[in-house]
Amino acid sequence: MLNLPETVVIEDQGLRDGLQSEPKIVPPEKKLEIMRALVDAGLKRIQLTSFVNPKLVPQLADAEQVCAGRLRRNDVIYSALVLNARGMQRAVDAGLSHVEASISASETHSRRNVNASLPEARRGFTEMVQIATANGLRVRGGVQCAFGCRFEGLIQPQAVIDMVKAHLDQHVDEIALADTTGMADPRSIAELCSTVVAMAAGRPVFLHLHDTEGKGLANVLAAMQVGIRHFDTTFGGTGGCPFIQGATGNISTEDLVVMLHQMGIRTGIDAEKIAMVSRSLEVEFGRRFSGRMHRLLGRTDIQILHTPL
Amino acid sequence: MLNLPETVVIEDQGLRDGLQSEPKIVPPEKKLEIMRALVDAGLKRIQLTSFVNPKLVPQLADAEQVCAGRLRRNDVIYSALVLNARGMQRAVDAGLSHVEASISASETHSRRNVNASLPEARRGFTEMVQIATANGLRVRGGVQCAFGCRFEGLIQPQAVIDMVKAHLDQHVDEIALADTTGMADPRSIAELCSTVVAMAAGRPVFLHLHDTEGKGLANVLAAMQVGIRHFDTTFGGTGGCPFIQGATGNISTEDLVVMLHQMGIRTGIDAEKIAMVSRSLEVEFGRRFSGRMHRLLGRTDIQILHTPL
Repeated sequence: MLNLPETVVIEDQGLRDGLQSEPKIVPPEKKLEIMRALVDAGLKRIQLTSFVNPKLVPQLADAEQVCAGRLRRNDVIYSALVLNARGMQRAVDAGLSHVEASISASETHSRRNVNASLPEARRGFTEMVQIATANGLRVRGGVQCAFGCRFEGLIQPQAVIDMVKAHLDQHVDEIALADTTGMADPRSIAELCSTVVAMAAGRPVFLHLHDTEGKGLANVLAAMQVGIRHFDTTFGGTGGCPFIQGATGNISTEDLVVMLHQMGIRTGIDAEKIAMVSRSLEVEFGRRFSGRMHRLLGRTDIQILHTPL
Repeated sequence: MLNLPETVVIEDQGLRDGLQSEPKIVPPEKKLEIMRALVDAGLKRIQLTSFVNPKLVPQLADAEQVCAGRLRRNDVIYSALVLNARGMQRAVDAGLSHVEASISASETHSRRNVNASLPEARRGFTEMVQIATANGLRVRGGVQCAFGCRFEGLIQPQAVIDMVKAHLDQHVDEIALADTTGMADPRSIAELCSTVVAMAAGRPVFLHLHDTEGKGLANVLAAMQVGIRHFDTTFGGTGGCPFIQGATGNISTEDLVVMLHQMGIRTGIDAEKIAMVSRSLEVEFGRRFSGRMHRLLGRTDIQILHTPL
């Protein structure tokens, strides 16, 4: 009735996208404890950190330490977000096998976020890929603000398609489309993603969604129907956007996992174990994360339709 | 690509489902002010109140007063929720032309909510329809807990289908399926709704969704793809569930309207006008409602993709 997959791959990015916008800095030992809990819950893809300027993002200043402490397992892919050549070299030195190199589709966002025009960002991307490839790293090529920009409004889909084509021409292993501030809707998702899935010709296309306008899971549903099988999430729906005060974060790992399981789609992830992480962090941070299921999964007095798969 | 409608009809139930679970009682003058704002924003369907025991639900003890104060307009349908014959007689006396008579698909929920077994509730429903029909009222026949119950867990779809058939046999004018505590998922929505839409044979089938697990708008998307064109919402996503402490409310009128407009689906509703109502009530109640767009629509420093239609 709806064209749906049997399985979906989830990359939890809470340690990076979730924690980078929290005022409270989480020490590396705690991050590694969260990482172990995510692995224990069945996550096979985890974004650990980002190699950015520690002065600008002190929350991730411990990137090397976190990478060094990762549980080495053949069945788990750890990645880090990288925005320039210097960051890529740090990722190489940290011994990662997988990185995400990402640039923005919005000129204004690019200038504000990394102080680069779009052509400058493209040259930076080329440089990042060269360093990664020379060192045998697999690269996920990302496009930020792929569905809109809070500064510019609409982003032309053709501009995103052109960026994806340039990424693929540089032989990235995977594509990621990021709805950086939650502006995508199910129709824009279906239209752009169906084109990008076809272009990617079998390479994984990750969708990175924020739930700012409450459309996160609706966008997942639309994306699955046009062939997307890979999603980024954060435990508890942590994270936010520095440009939108009070904006909600990424789609929540637990919320997505539970919805997929209810629909009979396998993820291999135990949402209850992740919910325990989210609830403990909520206490520590003293605020409610924007996800829903992490609180419900702790309840025993009500029925929750949910089969761990 | 996705099978989507050109227009959608929205019934705002904030005055009933939103306010009935608020600790603070809103005076009837304020309710009528909200009603006028909803009409001004373009709502063509508004559920004003429920005729229930004022001792049990003091928030709606002013049902007669609110109905008496409604703006009489040929293009707006006002309804009230009715759960027994006494309530139906009050709705008749209040001069309403349209009512929702509703019973639960869950035995436990039915006993706790209205102190009736399922057969008793069915007899009560028959009585309600008789009173309504004898007085020329149009009836929307509702099924609560149609996608699950927090006490019982899974509700068999066949049980819901049987209830809908019984409703239709009693010549109701419309059907409403309520996901009372937010347990539906896009697949269960698609499966049950496609059957019920076919059974209803052209009569409107309303879907009443709660966003408890964050799936509200995803469920809307699934429902539209199988022919559902009518949705209940509450301004700001007000409301909750007495059985789930801290649970979120209905899907938000503003969130749904904005998503639909972004997708090019018309609603005739000005979300910004409703957002003003929600924001002012948030201040009054001193808490954040679970919707998203009412806060974003008040911002002028960021871009929001949104064409009022």
